[in-house]
Amino acid sequence: MTILRSPAGIPDATVARLPLYLRALDELAASGTDVCSSEHLATAAGVNSAIVRKDLSHLGSYGTRGVGYDVRFLAGHIATVVGQTQPWPVVIVGAGHLGSALAAYQGFGARGVKVAAVVDADPALVGTVVGGHEVRAIDALADVIAVGEVSLAIIATPPAAAQSVADALVAAGITSILNFAPTALRVPAEVDLRQVDVAAELQILGYHAHHRRQAEPAEEAVLS
Amino acid sequence: MTILRSPAGIPDATVARLPLYLRALDELAASGTDVCSSEHLATAAGVNSAIVRKDLSHLGSYGTRGVGYDVRFLAGHIATVVGQTQPWPVVIVGAGHLGSALAAYQGFGARGVKVAAVVDADPALVGTVVGGHEVRAIDALADVIAVGEVSLAIIATPPAAAQSVADALVAAGITSILNFAPTALRVPAEVDLRQVDVAAELQILGYHAHHRRQAEPAEEAVLS
Repeated sequence: MTILRSPAGIPDATVARLPLYLRALDELAASGTDVCSSEHLATAAGVNSAIVRKDLSHLGSYGTRGVGYDVRFLAGHIATVVGQTQPWPVVIVGAGHLGSALAAYQGFGARGVKVAAVVDADPALVGTVVGGHEVRAIDALADVIAVGEVSLAIIATPPAAAQSVADALVAAGITSILNFAPTALRVPAEVDLRQVDVAAELQILGYHAHHRRQAEPAEEAVLS
Repeated sequence: MTILRSPAGIPDATVARLPLYLRALDELAASGTDVCSSEHLATAAGVNSAIVRKDLSHLGSYGTRGVGYDVRFLAGHIATVVGQTQPWPVVIVGAGHLGSALAAYQGFGARGVKVAAVVDADPALVGTVVGGHEVRAIDALADVIAVGEVSLAIIATPPAAAQSVADALVAAGITSILNFAPTALRVPAEVDLRQVDVAAELQILGYHAHHRRQAEPAEEAVLS
């Protein structure tokens, strides 16, 4: 196995799949698999095998022909490329149902994410414990971020509060935001913003279900 | 405004943005805006305005030049294209932290999604109430799906349980799955599968943060 290229200039679509390869390789390693083919990795990651080979070529990491990829070596290499050699602290804003679920999420640790703090604007929630974290007041945001050297934040507030929270996060030095509030946020160009809109995901599925159903003859007609 | 094309054959990338336009148009309508420009809609949806114009051209829906789009008309048209003229029932499998948060999510109703049922494999959770829904046993899955005419499901189980849940959902007639369990699922080709992997979203943000930091001189060096 040879490392031919620096990780700079990896296409965004490849970057977005690296965590899936890492997750799949960790699963393979945990199940005792030492070497895997690109087809094997593709299945474990839920990605087409031609895409796997192309993505890994961007990392400069080629498997040994006829043997495959060394699972642990490749996992370590991807972790280094992703920058996940130490856990990233993340602050969660919003201690409602979703924020609490994220604070309690057991899967973060193994994936290089560490919840540094949970904050909320609601005085009734401040001081309660969610997922092992005492909820802090939103006024403490700047402190929490500075003390914990946090650069990632999750917004899990109602949509009406999300923009002012984003502004406060940016002012406090946050450079990467994952927004779960179903509204578009405006952030400076140097801030990375990703959005998870659960209802939109369901609507996309619904669109395909709707048009599939229109394309099919009615079941009754087929049965009768 | 003229409708020039049937909604068939809309590119997937456009389909994925339709819910964002719908959400933005509903926000605009709620704030009393009757007519909007593509730039205005772009800002509200968090999308580039050239992409907005191209996407809407796929719907065959062109705004009036120099006037813009009729907000309510366009919202109604997109809702029809998406197939969201009546609420889609969805079953949530997994009544843990995340499943409970989704069951309680207030934002679904306005976006055409209705939680039909919540099921869990853990006898200790069956009979408890989450988000106003009494948790049913996983054995009731096929019944719940048949009675509620459900075709959408959310998997919010631990990763180890997700594949067998997906198999059971497919066997019970589910054709669209949104998977929150951080593992790749195998489903038949005719089943639509979308994945939300929260840790992967954070890792993608972390990748960019890591490489941005490497590209910048250390802050101390600049200050000293």
